[in-house]
Amino acid sequence: MDNATDKSAGWVTFDPELKIVDCTVRDGGLINAHKFDAGFFRKTYDVCAAAGIDYMEVGYKADRNLFEAGKFGPWKFSSEEDIRREIGDAAEGGLKLCAMADTGRTNLDDILPAEQSVLDMIRVATYIHQLPAALEIVKDAKNKGYEVALNLMAVSTVPDFELDNALDAISEVEEVDYLYVVDSYGSLYYEQIDDLIVRYRKTGKTLGIHAHNNQQLAYANTIYAAINGVKLLDTTMMGMGRGAGNCPTELLVGFLKNPKFDLRPILEFVRDTMLPMSRTMDWGYSIPYMITGHHNEHPRTAIALRASERKDDYLGFYDEIASPEA
Amino acid sequence: MDNATDKSAGWVTFDPELKIVDCTVRDGGLINAHKFDAGFFRKTYDVCAAAGIDYMEVGYKADRNLFEAGKFGPWKFSSEEDIRREIGDAAEGGLKLCAMADTGRTNLDDILPAEQSVLDMIRVATYIHQLPAALEIVKDAKNKGYEVALNLMAVSTVPDFELDNALDAISEVEEVDYLYVVDSYGSLYYEQIDDLIVRYRKTGKTLGIHAHNNQQLAYANTIYAAINGVKLLDTTMMGMGRGAGNCPTELLVGFLKNPKFDLRPILEFVRDTMLPMSRTMDWGYSIPYMITGHHNEHPRTAIALRASERKDDYLGFYDEIASPEA
Repeated sequence: MDNATDKSAGWVTFDPELKIVDCTVRDGGLINAHKFDAGFFRKTYDVCAAAGIDYMEVGYKADRNLFEAGKFGPWKFSSEEDIRREIGDAAEGGLKLCAMADTGRTNLDDILPAEQSVLDMIRVATYIHQLPAALEIVKDAKNKGYEVALNLMAVSTVPDFELDNALDAISEVEEVDYLYVVDSYGSLYYEQIDDLIVRYRKTGKTLGIHAHNNQQLAYANTIYAAINGVKLLDTTMMGMGRGAGNCPTELLVGFLKNPKFDLRPILEFVRDTMLPMSRTMDWGYSIPYMITGHHNEHPRTAIALRASERKDDYLGFYDEIASPEA
Repeated sequence: MDNATDKSAGWVTFDPELKIVDCTVRDGGLINAHKFDAGFFRKTYDVCAAAGIDYMEVGYKADRNLFEAGKFGPWKFSSEEDIRREIGDAAEGGLKLCAMADTGRTNLDDILPAEQSVLDMIRVATYIHQLPAALEIVKDAKNKGYEVALNLMAVSTVPDFELDNALDAISEVEEVDYLYVVDSYGSLYYEQIDDLIVRYRKTGKTLGIHAHNNQQLAYANTIYAAINGVKLLDTTMMGMGRGAGNCPTELLVGFLKNPKFDLRPILEFVRDTMLPMSRTMDWGYSIPYMITGHHNEHPRTAIALRASERKDDYLGFYDEIASPEA
């Protein structure tokens, strides 16, 4: 480990700069096209507020010209009206809200000036080949008054020199407040997370981490990152998220020692709301996701398998991934 | 990390000294009193052999005077006759066999001289207060010709000075071939595993790790240990084991780069045998085990909860563990 903090400091103290970003509605919405039951959004909001979570990600700011409204729930678009309808007077509480702007799928006109918005932060998600377009969204959002995070996706397949070039470019853009280490494929273990942290830190940005659970490493990688200086930690309730899902909010809250966090409302919510949902929707670690994670591949093939009658044909799926024909 | 190996060495090379000990029948047997279906033992043996696993733990060597035979399957006692009946001619193959001797529950007369036994290694499990008795079993087994491992259980609740005293005593006993870091409660994360590795290494013994999955950290802690010099790595098929279970064999085999390991037979076995078993038996990560892990407690209360009608009352269970009355 190149950048160890004092080894035992975290055992009984806490870092007040560590913040949790609960992405349940945004990343979990990838499973159900953001068509959650009525009341789910508000319940999630109330639980995050009661538990001391720092940010709740409400969904995407997708361009309505690119996505047919009828095919998606409201959190694909995350309009001000929809958010305010859900949270009403609570909007001025301590829990900050953020939304994700996918590069190439966002209309900048949909992002109001921050002073007119209930949102506090815009998170710009980008593949490395889209970086110039992403930085335009970043600058626009910053100029409108938001905190801005940049999430570099799928870097586990990017050659080092390209990634370093991208990081150099990001260093120059003062509008980026937070830079995220994203393990899109759930393929990374701690030495690789460490390598990314060391390189990302050279940008001078405050860092975040968004981990996936393909190898049961989302929580492990998140606490590794937290101990090594990463400040924004993404989680979802019961790990709900596309494919193998995310770092479970309940695991991280139980680990962090900051007394502002309270596990009780989360456990109640997971028991009464998330657990019943998990019985009819497929998310979380399973062996097909392990296989794509081990092979550093996008989980789409595993997601398709899990939705088919062959969902548990681990060996057949492995042969397809490990020894593809031509 | 105090003892980092060359940081990237493990990414594309492998350490030929890393060995896997599959404990499915032994640790998994804690769920069903070792009453496995006919044929399960032999299937597990064949899969381990085909996959290149180094050791298979067949069960306990429990004293028949202390345990009523009718209440347990054969792998509570792991007699030579029962093992040989299962594996027949295969007994001389490359897969080594081991059995666990629980301190205070083992009759030394049940352990034959190694030359008359199909077993290659005896693993002596002990709490720290039983160490002198454990070392007697160790010496007896070594004198009979076995490889001998010592598993120090529940050290996460042992004061440092007691543990260091125990490690000093173990250093003096040349009959201990392997010393195990055991995370009995699944309560440890990598900094704590590192601390134990550093201290255990001072004994001069070759180290092993046996991790539990209460916090989804069994695999993470196992690969952390492997990268930092621990050589014997305990796993179980599909993580089967008491409570939250263990490091899944399939995850570790998919991670290790030694070409002698083959994931295919494991995936076939997990698909056809373990997955159906998992539908009628409760093992693996769930939130009650997370709660006992976070609180560094034995999982017995969580196991009892999971066997009751209240199995998913996460909040009620949390309140009992976090705020017990008097």
